[in-house]
Amino acid sequence: MKTPNEPHFDNGAPFSSGGLIIRQQEPKNLEAPFVPIESYLTPTELFYIRSHFSTPDLDQASYQLRIEGAVKHPYSLSYDDLRSMPSEKRIATLECAGNGRVFLVPQVQGAQWELGAVSTAEWTGVPLRALLERAGLEGDACEIVLEGADRGTPKEEPRPPEPISYAWSLPRAKAIAPEVLIAYAMNGRELPRDHGFPVRAIVPGHYGMASVKWLTRIMAVRQPFHGYWLTSDYAYWDSMDGRPVRRALGEMQLKSEIARPRVYQALPADRIYTVSGAAWAGETDVIEIEVSTDGGQTWADAEFLDPVRRHAWRRWKFDWLTPKKPGQYTLLSRAKDGGGRVQPREHDQNYGVYVINHSLPIEVFVVDSAGQ
Amino acid sequence: MKTPNEPHFDNGAPFSSGGLIIRQQEPKNLEAPFVPIESYLTPTELFYIRSHFSTPDLDQASYQLRIEGAVKHPYSLSYDDLRSMPSEKRIATLECAGNGRVFLVPQVQGAQWELGAVSTAEWTGVPLRALLERAGLEGDACEIVLEGADRGTPKEEPRPPEPISYAWSLPRAKAIAPEVLIAYAMNGRELPRDHGFPVRAIVPGHYGMASVKWLTRIMAVRQPFHGYWLTSDYAYWDSMDGRPVRRALGEMQLKSEIARPRVYQALPADRIYTVSGAAWAGETDVIEIEVSTDGGQTWADAEFLDPVRRHAWRRWKFDWLTPKKPGQYTLLSRAKDGGGRVQPREHDQNYGVYVINHSLPIEVFVVDSAGQ
Repeated sequence: MKTPNEPHFDNGAPFSSGGLIIRQQEPKNLEAPFVPIESYLTPTELFYIRSHFSTPDLDQASYQLRIEGAVKHPYSLSYDDLRSMPSEKRIATLECAGNGRVFLVPQVQGAQWELGAVSTAEWTGVPLRALLERAGLEGDACEIVLEGADRGTPKEEPRPPEPISYAWSLPRAKAIAPEVLIAYAMNGRELPRDHGFPVRAIVPGHYGMASVKWLTRIMAVRQPFHGYWLTSDYAYWDSMDGRPVRRALGEMQLKSEIARPRVYQALPADRIYTVSGAAWAGETDVIEIEVSTDGGQTWADAEFLDPVRRHAWRRWKFDWLTPKKPGQYTLLSRAKDGGGRVQPREHDQNYGVYVINHSLPIEVFVVDSAGQ
Repeated sequence: MKTPNEPHFDNGAPFSSGGLIIRQQEPKNLEAPFVPIESYLTPTELFYIRSHFSTPDLDQASYQLRIEGAVKHPYSLSYDDLRSMPSEKRIATLECAGNGRVFLVPQVQGAQWELGAVSTAEWTGVPLRALLERAGLEGDACEIVLEGADRGTPKEEPRPPEPISYAWSLPRAKAIAPEVLIAYAMNGRELPRDHGFPVRAIVPGHYGMASVKWLTRIMAVRQPFHGYWLTSDYAYWDSMDGRPVRRALGEMQLKSEIARPRVYQALPADRIYTVSGAAWAGETDVIEIEVSTDGGQTWADAEFLDPVRRHAWRRWKFDWLTPKKPGQYTLLSRAKDGGGRVQPREHDQNYGVYVINHSLPIEVFVVDSAGQ
């Protein structure tokens, strides 16, 4: 019989869903345990939930999506109108820009996401490009603003004095890229309420803030849209001629995470343990993945389980012969992309509380197998 | 003989300089008593001082001003080079965007300026336009960045992780307007150290943050410069299609202030007291000024002491026959400009802790003259 102090050995038995981890109760911000090894697509009920305001309650029958602004023919679409248009299916990994934030030391403000604010699903919808073509997008429209039905007053300064709707803006070039969908289905079924029912944007390759949920308005604009989230919240310090300048986040940065073992898990000494995880990027492909079991002193190639698919993660595994010597060991993973980029070792402070894409350390205990 | 409790009657005797009021010791932020009635130009030693970092100690002999970026011929100028170019003199009123902040209720963060973070001087320098023409400004340069030698780490979030130089950026159209000077003299003498020695920008019509002190670099850029002060600090909520969007401050807003009497001053009943002050605007002319002595219920025309001069204040006065009935009275002034605008009655919350240009109340006590 085991006592509570005995180590629990995970030898790779399938992870049974324990539901979601609450990071914030209201508005809903829920994280899934990070277990992509189980299935390439994240089951819908385990897909992370990131909301800015209370979940709006939209009615499918009366739903209207308005396309307007710098277009020749503004119009509105009902839910049925949208579903009757030619649709596409796309697999895309979405990651919250704050995923991994709990790893930052000292602790920073915001939801303390661990590893699971990243998930992958198959989305069905109409390319945004088709909706804009139908409206006759003007040549001088530089951005496309996506606005949701969720509304409230942001907490962080500087904030506008009145309640506002959640909104994000895409550069024109990305908005008309073929992968950007106005989606009404997720993993083959209608969107759950927490994921944007009845209609949301899906912007593959960009952090999740761009995939606006409860989408009710698409507005083409002739000047950059410097709304709250693009300036006050999801922004970072870029550089112009060596001087820091503030820019909105966009493309997801190259990253990999270890799904198993989990932090402080106990592993038997001198046995093969299969380390696994996933790796992804924004507008490039992940082509290499390495693992270190000594805190980054040495690295060994891991093996991909999935082929390259732009905008979606690749799962990977690494068979680790655990040391004979019991003790604490630090595991790291490191991805490389087709453009020669390498996942960084440290957090880039210019990103503040976002883009935590450095190799996140997983500390484990190797224990004497005889202790079992 | 007077006792300390006896009211002091100010009958208009010349105000003797009591120096400056410290709002922040380091970096130096000093306010003058607001007394424009004494002289149209603010004496240099009473000109308000607003600094973002410690005052840099620049050497006139080794001073260099670099003009670069989106120009055909980048070059550097020494102090003597600059002084040998054709110069102009301009009178301009500068106002700190936070002037009047102490009137905001509830109290907000930032230096608690009262009425005196506004002053007027005559500036001598070379038009920025001439410097840009000599460099061959490119047609696609959209902004001109002015950078000072003062440097440090801002305190307010979001802030860049490394120290930065103070910098402001002007839209191209304003940068090439004839009134914008690269100045080396103030009221006919070289600039004092606290006012930007040896060289500063003077941007008439814009809030003081644009008139960069200790200027060492002029950089033409092809993309808007979203530096710290333009995005995190001196910014406000404008509107785009009804949605709040963040923009950098620029043009000074129409405003008037009462210089005398001062708050809680005691005035004798049933006598003529000359209320006086000044009024100014950004890119328009102040053409009317009114005074209320009953908290805004009724208004009477006041009289200008100075002619219209674009970018400079106009002093005004109003002879008030004080009430027979002793009591507390609230004085207000209200300016109108040539564009039909009227100074507002309340602070616009979209400006946050800046642009406090509403009519600021001056409460006074009218006391029985026999009490003298």
